Amino acid sequence: MKNIAVCLSPEMIHLFDLKDKAVVVVDILRATSSMVTGLGHGLSAIKPVASLDECRELGKNGYITAAERGGEKVEGFDIGNSPFSYMAEELKGRKVGITTTNGTLAISKSLEADHILIGAFLNINAVADRLRTLDKDVVIHCAGWKGSVNLEDTLFAGALIEILGDQFELTTDDAVMAQSLYRAHKNNLLETVANSAHAKRLAKFGVIKDIEFCVKFDEFAIVPYLADGELIK
Amino acid sequence: MKNIAVCLSPEMIHLFDLKDKAVVVVDILRATSSMVTGLGHGLSAIKPVASLDECRELGKNGYITAAERGGEKVEGFDIGNSPFSYMAEELKGRKVGITTTNGTLAISKSLEADHILIGAFLNINAVADRLRTLDKDVVIHCAGWKGSVNLEDTLFAGALIEILGDQFELTTDDAVMAQSLYRAHKNNLLETVANSAHAKRLAKFGVIKDIEFCVKFDEFAIVPYLADGELIK
Repeated sequence: MKNIAVCLSPEMIHLFDLKDKAVVVVDILRATSSMVTGLGHGLSAIKPVASLDECRELGKNGYITAAERGGEKVEGFDIGNSPFSYMAEELKGRKVGITTTNGTLAISKSLEADHILIGAFLNINAVADRLRTLDKDVVIHCAGWKGSVNLEDTLFAGALIEILGDQFELTTDDAVMAQSLYRAHKNNLLETVANSAHAKRLAKFGVIKDIEFCVKFDEFAIVPYLADGELIK
Repeated sequence: MKNIAVCLSPEMIHLFDLKDKAVVVVDILRATSSMVTGLGHGLSAIKPVASLDECRELGKNGYITAAERGGEKVEGFDIGNSPFSYMAEELKGRKVGITTTNGTLAISKSLEADHILIGAFLNINAVADRLRTLDKDVVIHCAGWKGSVNLEDTLFAGALIEILGDQFELTTDDAVMAQSLYRAHKNNLLETVANSAHAKRLAKFGVIKDIEFCVKFDEFAIVPYLADGELIK
């Protein structure tokens, strides 16, 4: 049977051997939710980069630029980190260069893996289907918040484990913990996520609408994956 | 109101500001359970050290030596990491020098704190009482397993939060996660811990008796704390 493990923060990803594995990167609020939304709405590709400077360079080469730091859009870039800004008609067929506080870091720390998939509640069953067809052990890599674990990414990990059911073996305690957390909160997911530390940080910026959207299941039947440094579907 | 946070692994302790805080170090299987047991049975002090060499040196200076690596007693030392080995009559009034895989590392990474307390299910209400009287914010530092998070230490963190109830504010998501995990498993604590990854590792060495003992509540009404590099009660 294939194994599934959960890394609760990029601070611990060095403890996992990612070689020959499928890694699902998740940053529910809001990087991976926005990536799924953008590719679901017709973006041709998303290029995650670590720094604001790299992102600015992409802007000079025809990319739409998306930059977020500490929950806010960075001045001088086209868009921020709200999934709603990825739905605009004029983005169709375009490429976006993106840099965020947590999500893009988690991607860059997953490069050793065979497959890097982008997960969110918005595409969770599509991700589950893909994992069933891949002949790989799985690590769910939670982006967290500046190194700390967070509720929303852990809840996603637990939900994905719950969906995959008996087809994967839970080999590490973090997978058991994530599943248990999801089972405890699946009937009040929005309320739980809205009370998370990160949601409270975001609430200052008036983005409750984003949070409501980011806990919706299966709005998109796509699985973004990394190929040659760009996310495509 | 005072705050309480949980650090799920020593790999993330640098994200916490420990200055002016009370830190509770926990390594349920089995370092802190054994420390509580030893001091509860009349040891005069326990000196945690990082390396086997340091521990051997203490042996030359009259200490009983305790050394565990990877779940097993290390050859050439007096005792290992089983709480039962800390109950012997001949240990009364003696000092123990101890080095373990995870627990002593978590202590050494907590030195910035104002107070370093040793917690286990075996003394959980004594620890809670002490935290109520100290005018300090609290960080529960889970020792984990070689950097990874584990069920048993997280369950202890959740139980301690549950006992402290409304007297502390949960400021971080890890505290909410630990509390949720404990609530989900408090009625089958032994079964849950016995199914943890670490318990399975230990089961190879036939220590189910240890595990049963380590999930008992309030066998001892003492709170070991670090003073001048030694744990005393």
